[in-house]
Amino acid sequence: MPYYIGDVIKDYKRLVIRTPEEFQKTGIDARIKTNVESIDPRQGMVHLSDGSGIPYDILVMATGAEANRLGIPGEDLEGVFTLRNLADGLKMKSYLNEKGCRKAVIIGAGYIATEMAEALKNLGIDTRIVYRGMLPVKRWDSEFTKMIMAELSEHGVPFISDTRPIAIEIGGNGRSRLVTDKGQLEADLILVATGISPNTKLAESIGAKIGKSGAIKVDSSQRTSLEGVYAVGDCCEVFHRVSGKWVYYPLGDIANKQGRIAGQNIGGLHAAFPGIVGAQAFKVFNLEVAATGLTEEEAERDGFQPVSNIIWGLPVGRPMAKGEKLGIKLTADKKTGKLLGAQAIGEKGAVQRINSLSLALWCGLDIDQIAYIDLAYAPPFGGAWDAIHIAAQTLRAKI
Amino acid sequence: MPYYIGDVIKDYKRLVIRTPEEFQKTGIDARIKTNVESIDPRQGMVHLSDGSGIPYDILVMATGAEANRLGIPGEDLEGVFTLRNLADGLKMKSYLNEKGCRKAVIIGAGYIATEMAEALKNLGIDTRIVYRGMLPVKRWDSEFTKMIMAELSEHGVPFISDTRPIAIEIGGNGRSRLVTDKGQLEADLILVATGISPNTKLAESIGAKIGKSGAIKVDSSQRTSLEGVYAVGDCCEVFHRVSGKWVYYPLGDIANKQGRIAGQNIGGLHAAFPGIVGAQAFKVFNLEVAATGLTEEEAERDGFQPVSNIIWGLPVGRPMAKGEKLGIKLTADKKTGKLLGAQAIGEKGAVQRINSLSLALWCGLDIDQIAYIDLAYAPPFGGAWDAIHIAAQTLRAKI
Repeated sequence: MPYYIGDVIKDYKRLVIRTPEEFQKTGIDARIKTNVESIDPRQGMVHLSDGSGIPYDILVMATGAEANRLGIPGEDLEGVFTLRNLADGLKMKSYLNEKGCRKAVIIGAGYIATEMAEALKNLGIDTRIVYRGMLPVKRWDSEFTKMIMAELSEHGVPFISDTRPIAIEIGGNGRSRLVTDKGQLEADLILVATGISPNTKLAESIGAKIGKSGAIKVDSSQRTSLEGVYAVGDCCEVFHRVSGKWVYYPLGDIANKQGRIAGQNIGGLHAAFPGIVGAQAFKVFNLEVAATGLTEEEAERDGFQPVSNIIWGLPVGRPMAKGEKLGIKLTADKKTGKLLGAQAIGEKGAVQRINSLSLALWCGLDIDQIAYIDLAYAPPFGGAWDAIHIAAQTLRAKI
Repeated sequence: MPYYIGDVIKDYKRLVIRTPEEFQKTGIDARIKTNVESIDPRQGMVHLSDGSGIPYDILVMATGAEANRLGIPGEDLEGVFTLRNLADGLKMKSYLNEKGCRKAVIIGAGYIATEMAEALKNLGIDTRIVYRGMLPVKRWDSEFTKMIMAELSEHGVPFISDTRPIAIEIGGNGRSRLVTDKGQLEADLILVATGISPNTKLAESIGAKIGKSGAIKVDSSQRTSLEGVYAVGDCCEVFHRVSGKWVYYPLGDIANKQGRIAGQNIGGLHAAFPGIVGAQAFKVFNLEVAATGLTEEEAERDGFQPVSNIIWGLPVGRPMAKGEKLGIKLTADKKTGKLLGAQAIGEKGAVQRINSLSLALWCGLDIDQIAYIDLAYAPPFGGAWDAIHIAAQTLRAKI
């Protein structure tokens, strides 16, 4: 399995990537297009694929995650892609530019799948989503995911549910053919977007502890179980402030924060990563979809007594409303009244509400407090009672 | 001075106002178009302008505020308006419909002035703002108010600063003429938008205590200093959680919350209004303008050691940016590092950031915490490091 230290990608205009020579000027020895083959922790030496070695005092594991594969025949055929990093994206882009594409099939129904459905459809490509389950992005309440389904459908992206891939073959009408338990789909491009898994092999090879989640165990300084070895980003766990548990949450903003914390500690400052509350969002065509905290299932598993409620409010004041919908689901603990999680969906204002509620989760507010929090009121941005207040008051009545 | 109990306005389509008969069916004795002339607190009796009286056990003062007048000659001429309540708005609308309007002059430069400048301009009316100061909406940093000035200017609304009204006369080219210390302006409509003052006369007449702010003193149950007398809304004070002081903050969302708290207490529940943090927002053409907490001046006056910083970030992730700007000003206390206030401006995302920061103020977070708070990250909604994080980290370096 290759472990990239870096990769020079010349055709991506916005990205500034230094050459090894430029790095050397800054005092950083960057070996690009080089894999780490093994690590000798006793000698403090990293052995590289080019036969050379690099000695170290401090080691930072930033090995990230990799895209899950289906494990079915034909997955290595030309035109079959996963999308995990910039190199994957550029490979797909080159393929689209060079070979063209009329029909695409996306396998999976998470963020990458729905976001890429929009991206490919916007390129004029006939795009379908194939999913083994019934509804996309399973984190969200089915009332919300039905709205996502409707959005995909309105934009001409069929969602083919309850369907399992069996094999990928060389195609007839398309360049490839996806064989499923429900029939066959011709496609010029097949994107496998069925989640990711942490790259822990190098860390395991030197004896770093792996957490229950399957990612590298760290503390709030980003230290692993091994002296002098740190881990950051999608290869390691993170502390969830709501559940009080270490979880696997491979998101880009978290990785950035962990990197900064590790850097500060390595540099001699004492910095602690305060953890996350699970804030996340994506956009699918004209819908904002966002969530924070625990789902009902997670809350129950973590020992809470979750009570939930969905309200449909407005993202703006009533006099300015033009038919926009804003759905908010709140989940609170029956015993303490504390907010445990929230989800939101709508043409606008969903991410805004989730960010406010993420702060509420961060500080451990209960829904009585949330029912009266002070938000900036003006009709272009919400009602005098914001959808958040209404959601909290409605859930209060239920508890 | 009239104290409206209510008013039936038939030509406002969206508004559902019950007739007195409809009220009576619900058990509520509503006297519309009736003023309270005096109150006899010993007898527990309200004396009305129609000569009748209403006995009471509990009295709720919801007398609101009224628009400030300039105190200059000609303020009562036809075509001169203030805009405080729905009736004012309808009066102005009728005037515009019946008499037409080519030119409008707005005196003042607060929310009402800037919002009405947009509204009148959008009706195709040649609109100017006349203000005695140099910059509009003085709560905001001058770096931000300059952007508001530019926005007004780009949309063809001249901002005539450093200019004091002296008199209003019957006009020549316009129906009215505003005489100022810098010259004369002809106008068909003059809007006086120079702030509001709480209606406290009735409360004062029965001996209710008035706070330092000039509004009615209440406690967190909305009780005034008098047994059985409550006050809510724009006539009374509210507790500011950041300064720990009782202040005058006449905003619609606060009034709604206070009404609900008073109602619960009167109904026998024990409800306490947790206070505000000063969240507020308005829109001017394509700009969102929002603020929360204390300004530097207020913070200094309240005994803090404010340190501030402005950053210009992006409301979306860098790859999705189309030239939008997002300015964030944070003010923190030098001694404790605690956030004291925030301001934001931009084409989008300003209100969203202020709402998150209002929650941070609500919970008393310091800027080290804010530098790592968990916000929903996706490029359509912000960067992996959100403008909030960058603002907090930049201010940290300054403290």
